Amino acid sequence: MTTPVRSYAAHSPTGRLGLFQFDRRSPRPDDVVIEVLYCGVCHSDLHTVRNDWGNAQYPIVPGHEIIGRVVAVGAEVSRFQPGERVGVGCMVASCRHCGSCGKGWEQYCESGATYTYNSKDPIDGSATQGGYSEQIVVAQDFVLKVPEALDPAATAPLLCAGITTWSPLRHWQVGPGSRVAIVGLGGLGHMGLKLAKAMGAEVTLFSRSPGKEADARRLGADRIVISTDEGQMASVTGRFDLVIDTVPCDHDVNPYLPTLASNGTLVMVGYLGPLTVPLNTVPMVRGRKALAGSLIGGIAETQAMLDFCGQHGITSDIELIRIQDINEAYERLIKADVKYRFVIDMASLQDGAPAMGSGVAA
Amino acid sequence: MTTPVRSYAAHSPTGRLGLFQFDRRSPRPDDVVIEVLYCGVCHSDLHTVRNDWGNAQYPIVPGHEIIGRVVAVGAEVSRFQPGERVGVGCMVASCRHCGSCGKGWEQYCESGATYTYNSKDPIDGSATQGGYSEQIVVAQDFVLKVPEALDPAATAPLLCAGITTWSPLRHWQVGPGSRVAIVGLGGLGHMGLKLAKAMGAEVTLFSRSPGKEADARRLGADRIVISTDEGQMASVTGRFDLVIDTVPCDHDVNPYLPTLASNGTLVMVGYLGPLTVPLNTVPMVRGRKALAGSLIGGIAETQAMLDFCGQHGITSDIELIRIQDINEAYERLIKADVKYRFVIDMASLQDGAPAMGSGVAA
Repeated sequence: MTTPVRSYAAHSPTGRLGLFQFDRRSPRPDDVVIEVLYCGVCHSDLHTVRNDWGNAQYPIVPGHEIIGRVVAVGAEVSRFQPGERVGVGCMVASCRHCGSCGKGWEQYCESGATYTYNSKDPIDGSATQGGYSEQIVVAQDFVLKVPEALDPAATAPLLCAGITTWSPLRHWQVGPGSRVAIVGLGGLGHMGLKLAKAMGAEVTLFSRSPGKEADARRLGADRIVISTDEGQMASVTGRFDLVIDTVPCDHDVNPYLPTLASNGTLVMVGYLGPLTVPLNTVPMVRGRKALAGSLIGGIAETQAMLDFCGQHGITSDIELIRIQDINEAYERLIKADVKYRFVIDMASLQDGAPAMGSGVAA
Repeated sequence: MTTPVRSYAAHSPTGRLGLFQFDRRSPRPDDVVIEVLYCGVCHSDLHTVRNDWGNAQYPIVPGHEIIGRVVAVGAEVSRFQPGERVGVGCMVASCRHCGSCGKGWEQYCESGATYTYNSKDPIDGSATQGGYSEQIVVAQDFVLKVPEALDPAATAPLLCAGITTWSPLRHWQVGPGSRVAIVGLGGLGHMGLKLAKAMGAEVTLFSRSPGKEADARRLGADRIVISTDEGQMASVTGRFDLVIDTVPCDHDVNPYLPTLASNGTLVMVGYLGPLTVPLNTVPMVRGRKALAGSLIGGIAETQAMLDFCGQHGITSDIELIRIQDINEAYERLIKADVKYRFVIDMASLQDGAPAMGSGVAA
């Protein structure tokens, strides 16, 4: 007994989204059925629907920053009840028994984690579809509890932008006395500033352009360094324990390596692909510095992040949109014209004309 | 009251060494005067005398894998006595009060460590000159105690090749249960195999060419993977906690990143410069893998390494040469034609003809 749900989907690499109806599975014993209230708009949504990573399986219903309300639970669900506010992030399943899963690193599952959309359900092989939809059905182990005190719309981006910056901050043990820098002030970057500051670190923003100072300070930065200014860059030589690089495209990371303290790490969280500017090993060897990558975070650490945000009143700075405006939002996302995350008010899905396009029910 | 000492020095970027006499300083209160018995031949010696790094200050007396015997000590020297066997590695001074020095990472001294040769003495500004000489004068804090049970000639390479592989093995906490791979079977690589094995790790050698299997196994490898064989490389996907890359020239590190386990690190210890093949961040992001560098090791960890080698009977596999054969040894070093480290028997400096070349005393 599947349930027909309305959504917005892309059907081709043009990436243009339109109304789409498909069937959600009937809940398995460990499943939670969630009414989607808000869904954040991540750069990955755009990369995926435009097939930038070459793995698109259309139709694709994007969305992995999901805040919703439990509407039903399977017979074996013990941790959730109807009416509870919950979240779903980038993953809905993993093997749960490999070395990575055993350490709580489901995102690095050795069999490959099942992503919230554009992935295959490990049980029935069906396509997973994301949060730009009325409803989602997810196994309880991949459902997060969301503090009721936080604004639900502004909480949605924590499920990807939040955990993606939280995980390296925690892994590299940032706390009072740490010196952290964030490269790029977008959806990920602005969360990096807020979280690093709340952890007690001294926080610097690297930005290519002036004019972001006031906003960066409001978000948690103690200082802004213009990365194209050699003098400013030289002034922070050897300073940072951790630099989190949120830039979502190919760029030269060499200027940031000398700003690391000995034993420091530059961690890339935004860009997947080749770094075309040759990487210079000299500052790495001469200070045991590292260039690393990090992908979202595990389920337990996502819960820890949400709990921390509840305690510290941390949410994302968002611009709330209607689902009907998603294509325009993508255009603005490409131009980095958003402060700092679009979130879709999913109530808008009930507005206006009847469903259009392929697979639509009357 | 300086002391004239005989040595071998390079006078130009041809890198050709010849007999040379210069004055060692008279010992300061904290200095140890050491008769050099053996000195290892490191690839850095060759890079420096040929000005590959652009910082050569001629004349240069190379040599930073020094084993000697104490012949005199300054008034404030408490830790050494005449007659003791001692070692000197790559550094002879550092600021001793910066953050790095405070952590025992003198090699990453924020003011720059003073190297054993081609550097400037921080007190009098004179050029430091290395171990291809009769005698060296070094502050006691940079002198190492050397286990008398070990063969002194074969112990010399521990001062650079040994500590360079030991430091990352210890920093990344290799022990029983760890899976370690070494890239390259040269002076550094063969020490990496021995030390990782003695620490209890499962040890793999990556090599481009077959035919090294028997030697690699004798030195400690549990397995050899031919890095040009895609099937063999695929068989170790996700396997290693630490890969130590000892290759001393530009090369493609991308094939090694997927062989790291999640959270694993590829550490470069042999090459300082740009990696011209674009580095692909995908395996790094999708497994929190890191590319790092590491430079020799601190003084305390060098002593710990020497003590460990004394307990485990570990030395280098060497080919003992006369100082008069150093230029030929360099030619063979370029061709990687040595198993696995040249060590100069410094007694040979007393052989043959009187001193020749500039600065020579009668």
